[in-house]
Amino acid sequence: MSYPDMISFAGGYPSPSLFDQAGLDAAMEKTRGAAASDVLQYGATEGRPGLREAFCRLLKGRGISTTADRLLITSGSQQGFDMLVRALIEPGDMVIVTRPAYSAALQALRLAGARLVTVEADMNGIDCDELERILSTSGQRPKMMYCVPTFGNPTGNSFTLAQRTQLVELALRYQFLLVEDDPYGELRFSGKPLATLTELASHVPGAADWVVYLSSLSKIIAPGLRIGVMLAPMDVRGRCMMTKQVSDLCTSPWMQLVAENYLESGALERNLPFIIDAYKGRCATMAVMLQSQLGDCFEFAVPEGGMFIWGEWKGKVDAADVFKQAIAANVVYVPGTSFYADKPDPRTLRLSFAMSSQQQIVDGVSRLRTAYDHHVESTQ
Amino acid sequence: MSYPDMISFAGGYPSPSLFDQAGLDAAMEKTRGAAASDVLQYGATEGRPGLREAFCRLLKGRGISTTADRLLITSGSQQGFDMLVRALIEPGDMVIVTRPAYSAALQALRLAGARLVTVEADMNGIDCDELERILSTSGQRPKMMYCVPTFGNPTGNSFTLAQRTQLVELALRYQFLLVEDDPYGELRFSGKPLATLTELASHVPGAADWVVYLSSLSKIIAPGLRIGVMLAPMDVRGRCMMTKQVSDLCTSPWMQLVAENYLESGALERNLPFIIDAYKGRCATMAVMLQSQLGDCFEFAVPEGGMFIWGEWKGKVDAADVFKQAIAANVVYVPGTSFYADKPDPRTLRLSFAMSSQQQIVDGVSRLRTAYDHHVESTQ
Repeated sequence: MSYPDMISFAGGYPSPSLFDQAGLDAAMEKTRGAAASDVLQYGATEGRPGLREAFCRLLKGRGISTTADRLLITSGSQQGFDMLVRALIEPGDMVIVTRPAYSAALQALRLAGARLVTVEADMNGIDCDELERILSTSGQRPKMMYCVPTFGNPTGNSFTLAQRTQLVELALRYQFLLVEDDPYGELRFSGKPLATLTELASHVPGAADWVVYLSSLSKIIAPGLRIGVMLAPMDVRGRCMMTKQVSDLCTSPWMQLVAENYLESGALERNLPFIIDAYKGRCATMAVMLQSQLGDCFEFAVPEGGMFIWGEWKGKVDAADVFKQAIAANVVYVPGTSFYADKPDPRTLRLSFAMSSQQQIVDGVSRLRTAYDHHVESTQ
Repeated sequence: MSYPDMISFAGGYPSPSLFDQAGLDAAMEKTRGAAASDVLQYGATEGRPGLREAFCRLLKGRGISTTADRLLITSGSQQGFDMLVRALIEPGDMVIVTRPAYSAALQALRLAGARLVTVEADMNGIDCDELERILSTSGQRPKMMYCVPTFGNPTGNSFTLAQRTQLVELALRYQFLLVEDDPYGELRFSGKPLATLTELASHVPGAADWVVYLSSLSKIIAPGLRIGVMLAPMDVRGRCMMTKQVSDLCTSPWMQLVAENYLESGALERNLPFIIDAYKGRCATMAVMLQSQLGDCFEFAVPEGGMFIWGEWKGKVDAADVFKQAIAANVVYVPGTSFYADKPDPRTLRLSFAMSSQQQIVDGVSRLRTAYDHHVESTQ
């Protein structure tokens, strides 16, 4: 039996066929003739005022009230988190992350020599009891906690409102910086929007001093812009600006103007429903296929948004072992262990439905079945 | 007496009136309709192959032979150096810098906790005897040396060929990474081009393993692109790529394609002579004016290229004191002390001629005379 091209559920990339090429070309065209001193020169480290205003309006739609002077434009959300880590984390500092967590965030923290302490996050959200136990018994005050509370990477799941409220209260009580990374929040297929940690913190006196909000245009417009945003307490923002000067002086002002033009044109509001619709359909197909093809051997939760389905092989099946058979069957996923700072669960894996067509999802999940069966045969 | 608008010789920016707006608009226009998966998606961390090929051709014109797989695209030269520092420097590591040196490089090194050791660089180039003395008597092997050998920032001066050769030999003998930052090398007004450290190292067996070349499009095209390049030994390149993944994943592929189109169009070869010509004229005017207006109280060397004139007030005059009078006279420069990791010479200052028109240079230097005279009066 031979297989056609590899089907990948492994990537964390958004679907390029859903990028609004025409809208972005128009936004770019509108930069033509912009004053050279405006977009071709070095720009302000904090980013263009116009783009920061546009982000204020975007964040308002997410329930977050802020002003342009509070925001910092970053070269993608990855840079936002990296700046925070560089500005604030010394070797040995305690940082709390979810178990599992976004692997590039773990990488940035490891590079800084942080001591990582994990709290379980699964289909039920985050385990606030475990967090509180750590906070009350650890001799060390954590400097920071990093999380993706909405449609998290890798789990696709969201923290409940009660958990969010508790997280904000714990950050205030134990005085650690709660970093909310929110690249996927607008990609909701079903269920009611949940308040961000940042919005909740604005209602608790003093709590806003302990919450940082990071977001990005990568998943709702296009990663190629390399534009993200940070909303942080003023002292943290100031320290991150110094770090940004050392890192790259400023984010390309030309690309910033493209993003600004795009956001101001209303194109995002027109295009985002198509992205959400496509992902919703792909997610539903993947969930139906996983249930029908792998219901006996694979457990997973259906997310209400985002780009990922997280699951685990039942029994004592190792996702890295099945992965070898999956490659042979021309389908790939990410074995879950790379998302754990500690206590990895070897049965887990991450599937992205964002990049694949409906047909690829149907075929890919069938190949996963083949891979699983071959794995079982090979171990008998 | 009242003064019109401030004249600034303080900035380190290139002149926006010399940016090739039409050529860049054309390079941007050519990206229209590029495959979304090509420029709007995340790109390879090392940069677009086409842009790396274009950089190979650019470097060839500078006497540097290399292949695209050796290069790494950076978000400006600043990011290139920052990546090197993050990848290689641990707190306490010894790093050699010139005295004076580019201040943002010092900032990146300080952030990493490097122990800075300085070697004098002045109108005669770099003091290789002092360097050799440090290397042979210091108990610690330096990890790195950072320098701008051609039209350096802040001095505008260049290392001689003999000094360059000696630097490469010392790097090989004492096994430290010699980082050659070369953003200004093509901005030559007079004199013969000098071989880069990188070219010289290619003729000494083993030396290429100890030299890193950094450059940027900021000074020869436009800073708003935020595009730089690194040529490094493969192991160093590999470590920098990991650091870049943590920093910003990749440099905007869209901006990379704009730069690639621009370089391939031949527009650089057409526009660069205008930039060089304008800077040459501005430099000459500033030199003539400084000599005629301040010849009795100010010493300086006339550079053969770049953007800066470095000089010092004669006698015991402090550049920070005259600076106060300069502001009052609506002209500014950068007092030299911010460029010193140690042993600052308080009489020194940096003047940029790049951003000012001929008339502004004439008026600005006259105001410097006024400022100096006011300073002398105020201290009598």
